[in-house]
Amino acid sequence: MLIVMDTHATPKQVESVCEEIRMLGLTPHPMPGAQRTAIGITGNKGAVDAARFEQLPGVMRIIQVTAPYKLVSREFHEADSLVHVGNVTFGGNQFAVVAGPCAVESAEQIDRAAAAVKSAGAHMLRGGAFKPRTSPYSFQGLGEPGLKLLAEAGQRNGLPVVTEAIDAESLELVVRYADMVQIGARNMQNFSLLRRAGRCGKPVILKRGMAATLEELLMAAEYIVNEGNHDVVLCERGVRTFADHTRNTLDLSAIPFVQRTSHLPIIADPSHGTGRREKVTPLSCAAAAVGADGLIIEVHPDPDHALSDGQQSLYPDQFVDLIARVRAITTVIGRHLN
Amino acid sequence: MLIVMDTHATPKQVESVCEEIRMLGLTPHPMPGAQRTAIGITGNKGAVDAARFEQLPGVMRIIQVTAPYKLVSREFHEADSLVHVGNVTFGGNQFAVVAGPCAVESAEQIDRAAAAVKSAGAHMLRGGAFKPRTSPYSFQGLGEPGLKLLAEAGQRNGLPVVTEAIDAESLELVVRYADMVQIGARNMQNFSLLRRAGRCGKPVILKRGMAATLEELLMAAEYIVNEGNHDVVLCERGVRTFADHTRNTLDLSAIPFVQRTSHLPIIADPSHGTGRREKVTPLSCAAAAVGADGLIIEVHPDPDHALSDGQQSLYPDQFVDLIARVRAITTVIGRHLN
Amino acid sequence: MLIVMDTHATPKQVESVCEEIRMLGLTPHPMPGAQRTAIGITGNKGAVDAARFEQLPGVMRIIQVTAPYKLVSREFHEADSLVHVGNVTFGGNQFAVVAGPCAVESAEQIDRAAAAVKSAGAHMLRGGAFKPRTSPYSFQGLGEPGLKLLAEAGQRNGLPVVTEAIDAESLELVVRYADMVQIGARNMQNFSLLRRAGRCGKPVILKRGMAATLEELLMAAEYIVNEGNHDVVLCERGVRTFADHTRNTLDLSAIPFVQRTSHLPIIADPSHGTGRREKVTPLSCAAAAVGADGLIIEVHPDPDHALSDGQQSLYPDQFVDLIARVRAITTVIGRHLN
Amino acid sequence: MLIVMDTHATPKQVESVCEEIRMLGLTPHPMPGAQRTAIGITGNKGAVDAARFEQLPGVMRIIQVTAPYKLVSREFHEADSLVHVGNVTFGGNQFAVVAGPCAVESAEQIDRAAAAVKSAGAHMLRGGAFKPRTSPYSFQGLGEPGLKLLAEAGQRNGLPVVTEAIDAESLELVVRYADMVQIGARNMQNFSLLRRAGRCGKPVILKRGMAATLEELLMAAEYIVNEGNHDVVLCERGVRTFADHTRNTLDLSAIPFVQRTSHLPIIADPSHGTGRREKVTPLSCAAAAVGADGLIIEVHPDPDHALSDGQQSLYPDQFVDLIARVRAITTVIGRHLN
Repeated sequence: MLIVMDTHATPKQVESVCEEIRMLGLTPHPMPGAQRTAIGITGNKGAVDAARFEQLPGVMRIIQVTAPYKLVSREFHEADSLVHVGNVTFGGNQFAVVAGPCAVESAEQIDRAAAAVKSAGAHMLRGGAFKPRTSPYSFQGLGEPGLKLLAEAGQRNGLPVVTEAIDAESLELVVRYADMVQIGARNMQNFSLLRRAGRCGKPVILKRGMAATLEELLMAAEYIVNEGNHDVVLCERGVRTFADHTRNTLDLSAIPFVQRTSHLPIIADPSHGTGRREKVTPLSCAAAAVGADGLIIEVHPDPDHALSDGQQSLYPDQFVDLIARVRAITTVIGRHLN
Repeated sequence: MLIVMDTHATPKQVESVCEEIRMLGLTPHPMPGAQRTAIGITGNKGAVDAARFEQLPGVMRIIQVTAPYKLVSREFHEADSLVHVGNVTFGGNQFAVVAGPCAVESAEQIDRAAAAVKSAGAHMLRGGAFKPRTSPYSFQGLGEPGLKLLAEAGQRNGLPVVTEAIDAESLELVVRYADMVQIGARNMQNFSLLRRAGRCGKPVILKRGMAATLEELLMAAEYIVNEGNHDVVLCERGVRTFADHTRNTLDLSAIPFVQRTSHLPIIADPSHGTGRREKVTPLSCAAAAVGADGLIIEVHPDPDHALSDGQQSLYPDQFVDLIARVRAITTVIGRHLN
Repeated sequence: MLIVMDTHATPKQVESVCEEIRMLGLTPHPMPGAQRTAIGITGNKGAVDAARFEQLPGVMRIIQVTAPYKLVSREFHEADSLVHVGNVTFGGNQFAVVAGPCAVESAEQIDRAAAAVKSAGAHMLRGGAFKPRTSPYSFQGLGEPGLKLLAEAGQRNGLPVVTEAIDAESLELVVRYADMVQIGARNMQNFSLLRRAGRCGKPVILKRGMAATLEELLMAAEYIVNEGNHDVVLCERGVRTFADHTRNTLDLSAIPFVQRTSHLPIIADPSHGTGRREKVTPLSCAAAAVGADGLIIEVHPDPDHALSDGQQSLYPDQFVDLIARVRAITTVIGRHLN
Repeated sequence: MLIVMDTHATPKQVESVCEEIRMLGLTPHPMPGAQRTAIGITGNKGAVDAARFEQLPGVMRIIQVTAPYKLVSREFHEADSLVHVGNVTFGGNQFAVVAGPCAVESAEQIDRAAAAVKSAGAHMLRGGAFKPRTSPYSFQGLGEPGLKLLAEAGQRNGLPVVTEAIDAESLELVVRYADMVQIGARNMQNFSLLRRAGRCGKPVILKRGMAATLEELLMAAEYIVNEGNHDVVLCERGVRTFADHTRNTLDLSAIPFVQRTSHLPIIADPSHGTGRREKVTPLSCAAAAVGADGLIIEVHPDPDHALSDGQQSLYPDQFVDLIARVRAITTVIGRHLN
């Protein structure tokens, strides 16, 4: 950490800051410059708590040098983490594809979806039973009956299933029925839910929040891992920007950044990332090419009558085409889409 | 709602869309243009569900004409809603000031804070017992003991208290000890929590999420009101943008927009909105001038040793000065800061 | 265009708007709804000027249905436009690679760069002689002598050259020495420069501005084409968002959007789009996979001593590797990187 | 400046960086930490050029401690700069109001506008003759004849005039006819134009770009001042964000930030900052309360028939009301709106 003093900071103020640093058992390195003094800190194991210093008299700003995440960082654990869900692997040189409808709507719908994505080559089935919707008047998901239908469709088609939990109650149910838990973008900083996910005993997909920096995403993962659950797969699903031609702006540079900084796998969600069916396949190809560890894609047997997100769901035959293209790209970059 | 068809949409596709509209008991108004056909819809009471149409063949995009919020809209309820908490009023021509530390740290700290803000002229006391923190290693609040200390400090100093709930459990506790519940920015779209807040029997401060549009803020309020709780005070606390000179960008234009569109009161939080102590007073004056119904301000008896957010907390004497300036401005614009 | 009236608009106000529409020779279609009246307009050839209506009494907002760009739109010209620069083609199923240093620094540097990118497989040489720099104290480019060195290096190595013009004077010089003119992101809405570029007689690369919507990008291209120059290649180079792990956020969804909406070719600039050398190759692969018509890449013979943008410039051997990867991807998606 | 090394940087790489620092005549301060080494630099007068170090092997990132602007900084010049235009003063405790139409449209229109804003209390007249418009098909301003009309209207009504220059030619004309030159948001980083403005001999209003950080705004001002023109007034006019309820997001925190960091005056433009007439007055009051040195406001004698920006232009009687409110607020905060 580096503490930058005001131009008009007095020598006494500089000394007080140094004293505070020493009280924490650390070593201050004051560097007097022409305009101002900066004070480096060494001796710390992890990040030093900036709040201790930010408000001291004469301090202008604090610059973090060490990243605040620890357990999820590459520096802590150099090798790629592999996350296993049944016989599916996220990370390493595997490329995993999760697919299915936005929401579970009926036994027939989810079963048709499962069969379609399975035969196209997907490895896991998705489908929401608890839907976080902007409007209280929109379809909110079938709840526990939806979970049952999802689990049955998964078993019948030989696909492990993942579905979203939105609070303590739904998490308990999701853990009972699903193979993997999803924490959605709107709950990325629902720290209470993250902690519970860290103790739930199932692998987790953690989606990046709509306005989350990658540091915040990694800190959210740290909440989960810190409770003992190491099976976390991150997911880039687009961020909110001024751009208005897509629902969100898919930030594919997040993928090489996370892979350099963290050992956790990271997949992409071009369905939410773009919000428009016709952009899902090109952006899926781009995500594969940039090095993502997998994809999560919305596919509906009949998108024209979907109860939610129909306009970003693929028709089954579009998904067949997507898989073919993505497989060709993964081959070229040395990954396996089995 | 207006449905815009593709340039190459066939007459049959246009007719299918019209048929779908009629099936909902509504009236289609096709308008053939030189380049494309647009279809207006009338006969609806509230917003029509766009998802029904977005995915029909030949549809290019859907344009919402009617706002999706209903109970919180001015069109539904023309007069300003007044929210009462003890003898404090939000809305109308009152100007309410909530103040106190970011977090309750100790009996002495919260009591000194309460005495200081009371004597300066604040109407309510704030102080967090459950703190949503980016890092799992940061101070997370005292929990229930913190709530007790807050309640005692409020009673001793004649100030109703407000504090944040972050999940079902903490909400239950907050309702037991506090006069008003705060839903923080990170939980603005925690719909499960919003619904519970709608049934909790206490007035609520709902903060705008970091990347929330005002439509989303109003829809979040709609979740609470739709459960029967009409006592909702909105709060602008800054949004996330590319600008890096403040922690967030305080969007004061939100205040006249909300006041035109909704009957709910709206206050401003310049402490989180800027993240820097020296900007809190000027932005508080600006918020009063723009017509906010009140302020929520972080004040700490000893900011240099605060356990969180010290750098944005005012010293008690700075808060005295803030109140004097804000009072002068409210007088000029015809409001009362008692 | 659709004109949405206020809830409280009077019948007389609705009629005035209709009258105004008729005065323009167009047809109004009033649609009275439960809450408000909307008025559709037909009979127009291109976009109707919204300003005529926005300020009429009773008007709440205007919704554009027809896109405001004309000459650059797919609706105007269905087939892909091909832009030829010497024997290089942008568009169709060609994949063009432009490469070279950020700035021309010396005869030796630009010649070594040209030789390196040529032997790696690039089709064109880039290199700035007029550099728009945030600070007046940074290196601003060599000016005309730089242009001469660039042109010589291009000729010696058999590569057409492109370089940036920043005002009328530099444009005149650039046209004299270069095969293609670049208009940079900071000048995307320098309409005076765009008009001149439209009359300059050379093909143009037009970069998306840092906060430009795609509609604004296409309108900027419309300025150039409207002056008679149809040889415009668009370039996605990253936009400014809250994300802080890259210099800009490369918005790859722009590419399929532009290709659907416009007939102009579009390439990507992952060097500026990320600002970090180690992300240039993965994002170049992603841009190829998403369907871009080419790339523009910063390569420097000795990035460690570059006078500008060294940290985002590739070493020559990294560029060899990039070309190999990108070629493999273009093959898979049916394009040719010769 | 602080140079942060990679975790795996070798001692030799650290030493190379130190050597490079010494070669610049500066002093390196290596601080070996548990995870990585950081190297402080002292001995520099202004900002050190980061580019020299960013690309050295083993360097992870560079942290700037000293701000890159110099002539415009408070550290360089402690007292407020006052900018005089005729008998109008920007800065100190004066509050200056510039008003008039978006564009000069006719002799009668600009004269009526001038008379109206003068009688309401404005100090200067604005009106564009060269309009940067997104579309080539929109009204682009009257050019030189517009300048003449503006100058005449100013003289007839005793108001100095300001108008926008968009390139070298228009700047030359503007200097001939106007008392003050405006550089618009889209040209904030048109460095060629900034340099010319720095030599033009007239005071300048420099508007913040739509996606410009305050550091970039101050660096743009530095371009002007560095050419010898010290009479620069900055202007906050809203930035582009995801928020969609206003045209731009007026960032009022920019004003106290700039006043702390720079000696230049700064005014606000709530007309462009919000884009909606009904928000101009509340945001003008907010700008006055936050401490702005003045306002620039669009007022049109007949906004319903304005050729541009009608929906954000005030009616003359609305402007009378605005001045009354703003005057009351300036009085309260100790400024003079004469």
